[in-house]
Amino acid sequence: MTDCPQHDVSLQEPQLPFNVFARSCPSRGTLEHVTGRWGSLTLGALGEDTLRFNELRRRVEGVSEKMLSQTLHALERDGLVHREAQATNPPRVEYRLTPLGLDTTQRLLDLIHLVEGRMPEVLAARQAYDAERAGR
Amino acid sequence: MTDCPQHDVSLQEPQLPFNVFARSCPSRGTLEHVTGRWGSLTLGALGEDTLRFNELRRRVEGVSEKMLSQTLHALERDGLVHREAQATNPPRVEYRLTPLGLDTTQRLLDLIHLVEGRMPEVLAARQAYDAERAGR
Repeated sequence: MTDCPQHDVSLQEPQLPFNVFARSCPSRGTLEHVTGRWGSLTLGALGEDTLRFNELRRRVEGVSEKMLSQTLHALERDGLVHREAQATNPPRVEYRLTPLGLDTTQRLLDLIHLVEGRMPEVLAARQAYDAERAGR
Repeated sequence: MTDCPQHDVSLQEPQLPFNVFARSCPSRGTLEHVTGRWGSLTLGALGEDTLRFNELRRRVEGVSEKMLSQTLHALERDGLVHREAQATNPPRVEYRLTPLGLDTTQRLLDLIHLVEGRMPEVLAARQAYDAERAGR
């Protein structure tokens, strides 16, 4: 089995590398929070600005209130997003990236921008693939 | 609604940018193929080497035969993975990244390596988050 430190002892044994290919490595879960359908779009949106919940909902088209709430909790727990409730009435709650979240989101946006920029190639590949299958 | 070219006319109208934040943009689907649980690990494994199906299954710990097969079809259709069946008996089928898949995987690996490297911070954040919730 691929090496990965145990969850419980990881902080004490930093010499064991984390490895997403290992089934039980906690880095796999964090990668999923970062790259999941709503996680990636939420981080991408917060990479541009500090946002309130409803602003985020509008920016991440198609996300439900429940899914956005779950997504934000997971990202906050992983230390990627900071939630700040200001003592106003009604309370104003804002979400922003932590320094770790900012570094992660920069890499994520590099990937997103590459995918967006190469979509003409992707769509051409799909056409060719479907045409070949249809012609068999 | 956020702008994104229509699927059908995208090749004719490259001036319209693709945008993963738009609900119906095809780039969102491709990003999901790239960053999905099994898609990301499959691309990461092929980023290291050309592999046969069963080699991939061993490398991507925990993936089922069915899920790996579906994942490879989606990545092949998007033009990220090339499937080559050699005319041997029995046929030897190999998977490797296309140039587009290679560029995409390089960005993905940059992200994966950052996440793996920062996991001590993530685990410390989780401990603090859980401790705060437990203390309320």
